[in-house]
Amino acid sequence: MEKVYITGIGQVAVGEHWDQSLAALSSKAIRAALKDAGDPQPEIVYIGNFLASSISHQANLGALVCDAAGLHGLEGTTVEAGEASGAAALHMGYLAITSNMADCVVVVGLEKMTDMVGDEIEAFAAQSGDTDFEGMQGLTPNGMAGLLMQRYLDQYHAPCESFASFPITAHANGVNNPFAMYRKNVDLDSYGKAPMVSVPLSLYDVPTFADGAAALVLVNRKLLRDGQKAVLISASEIATDTLAVHDRADPLAFDAVHISTTKALEKAKLTRDCLDLFECWDTPSIYGMLSLEAGGFAERGRGWQFATLDNLALTGRLPVATLGGIKAHGFAPGAAGAYQVLDAVQQLRGEAGRNQIASAQVAMTQAISGAAASVITHILRKM
Amino acid sequence: MEKVYITGIGQVAVGEHWDQSLAALSSKAIRAALKDAGDPQPEIVYIGNFLASSISHQANLGALVCDAAGLHGLEGTTVEAGEASGAAALHMGYLAITSNMADCVVVVGLEKMTDMVGDEIEAFAAQSGDTDFEGMQGLTPNGMAGLLMQRYLDQYHAPCESFASFPITAHANGVNNPFAMYRKNVDLDSYGKAPMVSVPLSLYDVPTFADGAAALVLVNRKLLRDGQKAVLISASEIATDTLAVHDRADPLAFDAVHISTTKALEKAKLTRDCLDLFECWDTPSIYGMLSLEAGGFAERGRGWQFATLDNLALTGRLPVATLGGIKAHGFAPGAAGAYQVLDAVQQLRGEAGRNQIASAQVAMTQAISGAAASVITHILRKM
Repeated sequence: MEKVYITGIGQVAVGEHWDQSLAALSSKAIRAALKDAGDPQPEIVYIGNFLASSISHQANLGALVCDAAGLHGLEGTTVEAGEASGAAALHMGYLAITSNMADCVVVVGLEKMTDMVGDEIEAFAAQSGDTDFEGMQGLTPNGMAGLLMQRYLDQYHAPCESFASFPITAHANGVNNPFAMYRKNVDLDSYGKAPMVSVPLSLYDVPTFADGAAALVLVNRKLLRDGQKAVLISASEIATDTLAVHDRADPLAFDAVHISTTKALEKAKLTRDCLDLFECWDTPSIYGMLSLEAGGFAERGRGWQFATLDNLALTGRLPVATLGGIKAHGFAPGAAGAYQVLDAVQQLRGEAGRNQIASAQVAMTQAISGAAASVITHILRKM
Repeated sequence: MEKVYITGIGQVAVGEHWDQSLAALSSKAIRAALKDAGDPQPEIVYIGNFLASSISHQANLGALVCDAAGLHGLEGTTVEAGEASGAAALHMGYLAITSNMADCVVVVGLEKMTDMVGDEIEAFAAQSGDTDFEGMQGLTPNGMAGLLMQRYLDQYHAPCESFASFPITAHANGVNNPFAMYRKNVDLDSYGKAPMVSVPLSLYDVPTFADGAAALVLVNRKLLRDGQKAVLISASEIATDTLAVHDRADPLAFDAVHISTTKALEKAKLTRDCLDLFECWDTPSIYGMLSLEAGGFAERGRGWQFATLDNLALTGRLPVATLGGIKAHGFAPGAAGAYQVLDAVQQLRGEAGRNQIASAQVAMTQAISGAAASVITHILRKM
């Protein structure tokens, strides 16, 4: 099987880009990634996007993005897996290289939330859950996360501040990331005083919707140049669970996280101890917590004891959100899975600046859509 | 590169399935396809869908469809390329097998139009064109096709009835297909009297939106059983053009058809003469015509002389729409590209009943989205 290397990354800062279209955002990220990779000639572009159809009334992004980026005539296709779409597009790029269909593929995670404003946005975001049985009844993503957090607190008698480590860590790491939307620290005191969004979920437990585009250039061995800074994709694994949470025997189990993580580690022939960092789905913070447990990093019901500030810090046992995570980056849903990989690539290249994890060799990234209805895990290695 | 075989097909008849959800439609097609393939255990499901986000407010179909079909935990991802989404999903399935990521993949084209009624449907369908510069100005898919047809008639001094061969052929072939929505003949007289939709485009020149699901089971050599009726995928090629037609030097050129067709024939090491049938994008009929020209089956501007009833018939030089095409099948946009392949598979298996093309060995299928902004060509061979 042909090996797959990431040789270029490019991103626009997540934010409210009122004046920039889907075409403009994606082009900027793609051109930056191609330049970073030494301007190879890609043959395929995969676009990870969640909501352009509902929010921007635009589908067929394959043609739109190729055209806008000056990549005329190329294969261009959209890949959708809810909020994990960016990671799903990377998975397809991985397949295209391993299958020898292409020597060079561009992957871009893309989301434009500000083409619409108001309550509708929250309703659209609920499309990653079960519309008929959840969304239609008014259950939004934050509503679902709040229910699961309440269940967690009740079932495990965990204190509310158990979840604070995720946003505090993410915000601390976001301070040094010029592409992060929020670049200020949050402490336990302000976490405790934050207004409630969906009890017991507070403002710091949930992501902020925004626009974004993050691109990656993938090549095979043949196109890899000597001395080029490259990152190997050791595994790319997708798993699904029931779409509706009420269909699960155990709502806190996050089975798809377990399946996806286990398969990825097996494929990469690695154990959890080998990971130097884990770009987990850090927000809603309850999802970060459940992914640590389902992923086997902490025992069931004991994640809150594992997820201390010390353990999750850049120098900790399992650094997460190392350049701000989704919480401090801002949340461009269909792009988030790609931003996670960009952050991991920067760590493995030793380009994470003041957030650099010393001698980082192996990183795992994990994108979650819905209440872990789809989970996509990638394992990356420094070359 | 691992070879890819289609060993199972399953479909629901295209129609107005008011009482059936996305989950129900896809499950029926998938279960039928798996049964047809001898019930192998798939590892991945790719869903081709165009408009579920806008029409059914449901994304994350990967989890929905896997769950509904009883395929718990599998990789499930949505692939979107406008009206060509079903073919795009097949392309991804092809990649997953050739890359050795999976031994068995299920592909399903899926569309549920009747979750919404009224004018909005036409506006949503326009999402496969350029929303900012075409759709937003009121240019619908039928509007665009009408403009291109007018241009064709003017530029080449072709008679209006030049296009009649497409719907007449499709309807004639649909009569014997139990899965077709329209099972009655149309003649030149009724074609000439049909009400106009977008002058000079009449009712018989355009497709009818409806619900549908069509599934395919793909396996590699290892899972192919002796004596199993299988069809080889010899090529799967996607190409894009500018999304907006006004950005093209020649609006009648359909460059993406040319690129996709040429690449597919090269990959399959075949010439056009080798094709026993061509499941072309037969409606809007102008797109059928332009795809014959751009695909190299007829000279530029002479397609209308080539596209006679005799030439396109089951016994003709280039049989098209052999089981009713999109026109008689009914048009479930995201599923149409998959239905085309199902029809071709039936021909190659010798299961096309009264529409059987004698000793059919090689078939080409071609799905078009927007005004040929994305084009996906597959070449299939009898085993």
